[in-house]
Amino acid sequence: MKKVSEHDSINEMYQKLTDDKMSNVFDREEQQETVRCAFCSQGMSCQLCSNGPCRITPVIDGVRKIDSGACGIGPDAMAMRYMLLRNVMGTSTYTYHAKEAFRTLKSTAEGRTPFEIQDITKLKTFANACGLKVTSVNETAINLAKFLYEQTYTSKPSIMVERFAPKPRKDLWNKLDLFPAGPQEEMLISTSSCLTNVDSDYVSLALKAMRLGISCIYGAQIGLEMVQDILYGTPMPHKVDVDLGIVDPNYINIVVNGHEPFVGAALIDMARSSQIQERARAEGAKGLRIVGSIETGQELIQRYDMDDVFVGLTGNWITIEPLLATNAVDVFAMDMNCSLPRLNEYSKKYNSTLVSVSKLVKLPHVSINMDYEPHKVEKMAEDIINIAFKNYKIRKSTKSYVPAKKTGAIVGISTEAILHILGGSLDPLLNAIKDGDIKGVVALISCTSIHGHGHDMNTVAIAKELIKKDILILSAGCGNAALQVAGLTSLDAIDLAGSKLAGVCKLLKIPPVLSFGTCTDTGRISMVVSELANALNVDTKDLPIAVSAPEYMEQKATIDALFALGFGLYTHVSPLPPVTGGDSLVKLLTNDLENLTGAKLNVDTDMIKAAANIESHILKKRKRLGI
Amino acid sequence: MKKVSEHDSINEMYQKLTDDKMSNVFDREEQQETVRCAFCSQGMSCQLCSNGPCRITPVIDGVRKIDSGACGIGPDAMAMRYMLLRNVMGTSTYTYHAKEAFRTLKSTAEGRTPFEIQDITKLKTFANACGLKVTSVNETAINLAKFLYEQTYTSKPSIMVERFAPKPRKDLWNKLDLFPAGPQEEMLISTSSCLTNVDSDYVSLALKAMRLGISCIYGAQIGLEMVQDILYGTPMPHKVDVDLGIVDPNYINIVVNGHEPFVGAALIDMARSSQIQERARAEGAKGLRIVGSIETGQELIQRYDMDDVFVGLTGNWITIEPLLATNAVDVFAMDMNCSLPRLNEYSKKYNSTLVSVSKLVKLPHVSINMDYEPHKVEKMAEDIINIAFKNYKIRKSTKSYVPAKKTGAIVGISTEAILHILGGSLDPLLNAIKDGDIKGVVALISCTSIHGHGHDMNTVAIAKELIKKDILILSAGCGNAALQVAGLTSLDAIDLAGSKLAGVCKLLKIPPVLSFGTCTDTGRISMVVSELANALNVDTKDLPIAVSAPEYMEQKATIDALFALGFGLYTHVSPLPPVTGGDSLVKLLTNDLENLTGAKLNVDTDMIKAAANIESHILKKRKRLGI
Repeated sequence: MKKVSEHDSINEMYQKLTDDKMSNVFDREEQQETVRCAFCSQGMSCQLCSNGPCRITPVIDGVRKIDSGACGIGPDAMAMRYMLLRNVMGTSTYTYHAKEAFRTLKSTAEGRTPFEIQDITKLKTFANACGLKVTSVNETAINLAKFLYEQTYTSKPSIMVERFAPKPRKDLWNKLDLFPAGPQEEMLISTSSCLTNVDSDYVSLALKAMRLGISCIYGAQIGLEMVQDILYGTPMPHKVDVDLGIVDPNYINIVVNGHEPFVGAALIDMARSSQIQERARAEGAKGLRIVGSIETGQELIQRYDMDDVFVGLTGNWITIEPLLATNAVDVFAMDMNCSLPRLNEYSKKYNSTLVSVSKLVKLPHVSINMDYEPHKVEKMAEDIINIAFKNYKIRKSTKSYVPAKKTGAIVGISTEAILHILGGSLDPLLNAIKDGDIKGVVALISCTSIHGHGHDMNTVAIAKELIKKDILILSAGCGNAALQVAGLTSLDAIDLAGSKLAGVCKLLKIPPVLSFGTCTDTGRISMVVSELANALNVDTKDLPIAVSAPEYMEQKATIDALFALGFGLYTHVSPLPPVTGGDSLVKLLTNDLENLTGAKLNVDTDMIKAAANIESHILKKRKRLGI
Repeated sequence: MKKVSEHDSINEMYQKLTDDKMSNVFDREEQQETVRCAFCSQGMSCQLCSNGPCRITPVIDGVRKIDSGACGIGPDAMAMRYMLLRNVMGTSTYTYHAKEAFRTLKSTAEGRTPFEIQDITKLKTFANACGLKVTSVNETAINLAKFLYEQTYTSKPSIMVERFAPKPRKDLWNKLDLFPAGPQEEMLISTSSCLTNVDSDYVSLALKAMRLGISCIYGAQIGLEMVQDILYGTPMPHKVDVDLGIVDPNYINIVVNGHEPFVGAALIDMARSSQIQERARAEGAKGLRIVGSIETGQELIQRYDMDDVFVGLTGNWITIEPLLATNAVDVFAMDMNCSLPRLNEYSKKYNSTLVSVSKLVKLPHVSINMDYEPHKVEKMAEDIINIAFKNYKIRKSTKSYVPAKKTGAIVGISTEAILHILGGSLDPLLNAIKDGDIKGVVALISCTSIHGHGHDMNTVAIAKELIKKDILILSAGCGNAALQVAGLTSLDAIDLAGSKLAGVCKLLKIPPVLSFGTCTDTGRISMVVSELANALNVDTKDLPIAVSAPEYMEQKATIDALFALGFGLYTHVSPLPPVTGGDSLVKLLTNDLENLTGAKLNVDTDMIKAAANIESHILKKRKRLGI
């Protein structure tokens, strides 16, 4: 059997896809390898204006035959400009999600959604931390929602940065002109800077990208995750099941996919009614279930307990085509991102119904589109359940194929959860770090990509290397699902950790990889980092920590990485980002930046080497701290 | 002499650039032709995510060997997605400019700028048209500025569209879900839709692009131009000089370049003081002058009379390198866009000082950066003048070379100016159209591009063809400068028009090409079109009019074109936009769209053919109207 993935379930399904002659991401990627463009891979190509497309040729014997585009832009700015545009895309998507969350909070407080505010304590604490007056629950929620909504587009300096960033960073950002306004204002500046003949200075473009990253984390992501906690509960540790084996074809199965928990939460609440379950049994099914997929699933498993209705998480985005090929899915409900373009071929072949629940998500030949609005979510959930029933009538007489693979994962590690585990104070963690029982901490925030290697292979490889070196991992993003399915977020994984880290994990009854959530939780992780820095009274750049995106894929990942660089962190990414054609740009990111923000980009594509370099960095920082 | 441009002055300077061995846009474009990528040219290449870069291969014998990217995106969506991203860039830049104008109006009303509100009547009329209460001048100005500012980011349906779009269009836009919110909100939706695995339906992406275009025109451009009229005066017809010959090296010359009039206006006002002029003469110069370049110059010549201080317009963006090579420029002040990346090589060689006056504009090795803020503009003008003096001390002993080419142009044709010319009513124009003396009207809104042909050659060629066919031209954008420098906006050009149009022009004493202003004036032109449609009581799509962008270059042009398609207009663009790899997309834009919005895209690259097709379209529309 061809091994396209780290996970047996996916390898098994790949065989089925091959037998069924289905177009799939693995084959399409292989096909692309035969026509890939070296100019594009290195960022030496530009298609922005009609004088182009342009290309910059490689250095041969110290000379570039063509050293700029028609306008005159050089290799470094050409590569960085496209990178900045990708960063705008990521910021845009996070901000869109954030605004939907803020509108959902407001509508909920106004009694216009089926949701009830779950974490009132957090509502009050967070509103207070934002500088707002705390009054009644609903009034506070409405004021918080309005405040956060305005922070997304403010053209004044971001109050969220002022309130939540560590002081040494704020001072530095002011000095470097990196202290941002709201993300939509920064998007306006960055996007306008990318026009032909506007900003052609790679250093300026790189600084704009970091400024954008800072605005995104504080102006969108932190508020977003806190509001989702307020709405659906702050994650606390509990066990869930993951991998394709959680899907039972004898149930009516509604899969919720994307990045937003809103529709999924409404579906779980509704599906938990005995009426729906009885109706499902009357239809000949064992019941009706909600199945989490990628980040929508991840948001839900972090906050919802499993039962016979909500059954866990299937995996990350590369898992989607294999999941649909099980012929066990009745509705595949798609919010914001990521749903692959050719899913209609799967829905036809494997008897499922695709439903878009976001105005962003439109797929060829998918005709059921419900644009999410908070006050419509109950009706949407009802409609989706009805569509699932209708689909099941047809699907029940067809043959399903689900790999019998299922793993346990401990999820729900928020900042509050860590404090809870540690008995109310960060001190035990700080002491473990000081004592060297935990050598350092790596935030592994990644997508999943199959460029140059198999699905989730890099992510699992580097995680194993790092924990072996007594480095604790905080995991978020699609890469988190990689580690969950691979079993690294279970207590069994303690056996794979170095002896010192294993000792800490055993004592605290935690796995060596702590499941923080989705890519959106980069904001949440930054808050933990800020707390560590404040507790040790040092700047973030001085901490024995690092960030790794061993399989970065899309535009949200790149903006998270740019934030990390602005935050002063050692940041490892793989595969090679398309900037390598610009020598000065590479030097800036991998070397010179250290003198600006204290950060450093590392682009090792070999995970053993990457982990070793991260360890060296951590040891260097430990030495400087004298620990 | 090699003919790289329609204009003798530029051809002459190209020879000098060649002799001086300067890298220039003409040679760089020629160089790119040797390495151009066919995938990129047709939109069949994608660099958005790390699974890529991807390519889609051409159809050979009816088959595409590779028919989608690794994610599964097909050719039509791949091409349209990049087009939408470019549209976002254009919208962003217009919106950025608009917000600067609104802030300038507010600061002016607060007495914090050197400007005085010039057109109080328009302030009141426009505020009233926006639905605002008209009170004192300053209070009205502040309220208008705030209202327009909010309209740029509102997530509610745009009040500007509601107030200014013709009713049949609004009804259609509501029906097609094209009625937009503010441009920044639409940018958020469009940009987020372009992420990997989000919107992969080319029809949806095309509709989003039109919605964005509508939001851009009404939410940014119309307010922007009206506010600039309020601040600096509504354009009224007058004569100015254009072409490189307006520059006299014996003066201290400050060139204002870009798209925004703010710094240029402050400079003109300041330079008109006798103190500055005396100081210049004391320095050995004949005086100090402000010279307009590209759209900043265009905004200024539309509103300012010429004198010995403000001397006209040099030309469009391709003219910039030749202009600097005259060795006659002391300061080249660059706002928002467009300033070519390698200008530092010119400033060194030809003794001028480059100054950025926008936080967007950053060039390699340009160290003088002043970020425009309305309340700082007086100080900025003062600093720039001082820098010019300093530069002149060095430059005065060096040799200049200015081609002796200068032409007259009639500029300042606003809607109000047309009404003024017509004696207060549109009727004479409508009658001329009804009688066939004016066969139709073409809005020629273009950049300048040298892809596949010389500088401004297409623009001049199609304009000559159209006026010969008795078609009146409203001209805007960098293409407007092309026509001004070529003499087509002077009364002499009447001789080139068809006899019927010539008769009308002689009667009204207007040239056959009416100079409306910059690309930003697309909004202003849309208002004229709306008035024509309202006067004839028909929808915009039924008018005997068309849009042509015979040398579209960058991302602002593409969003103007997308608006025109949403507005129901026949739209000609050249060169070929990078969408031709997507057959269904091409069919949608060039054919099927007619049933949706009434619009049609035409991509003739032969200007004779393009003009003939425009004429056929106009005749078809005339026939339907029964005129």
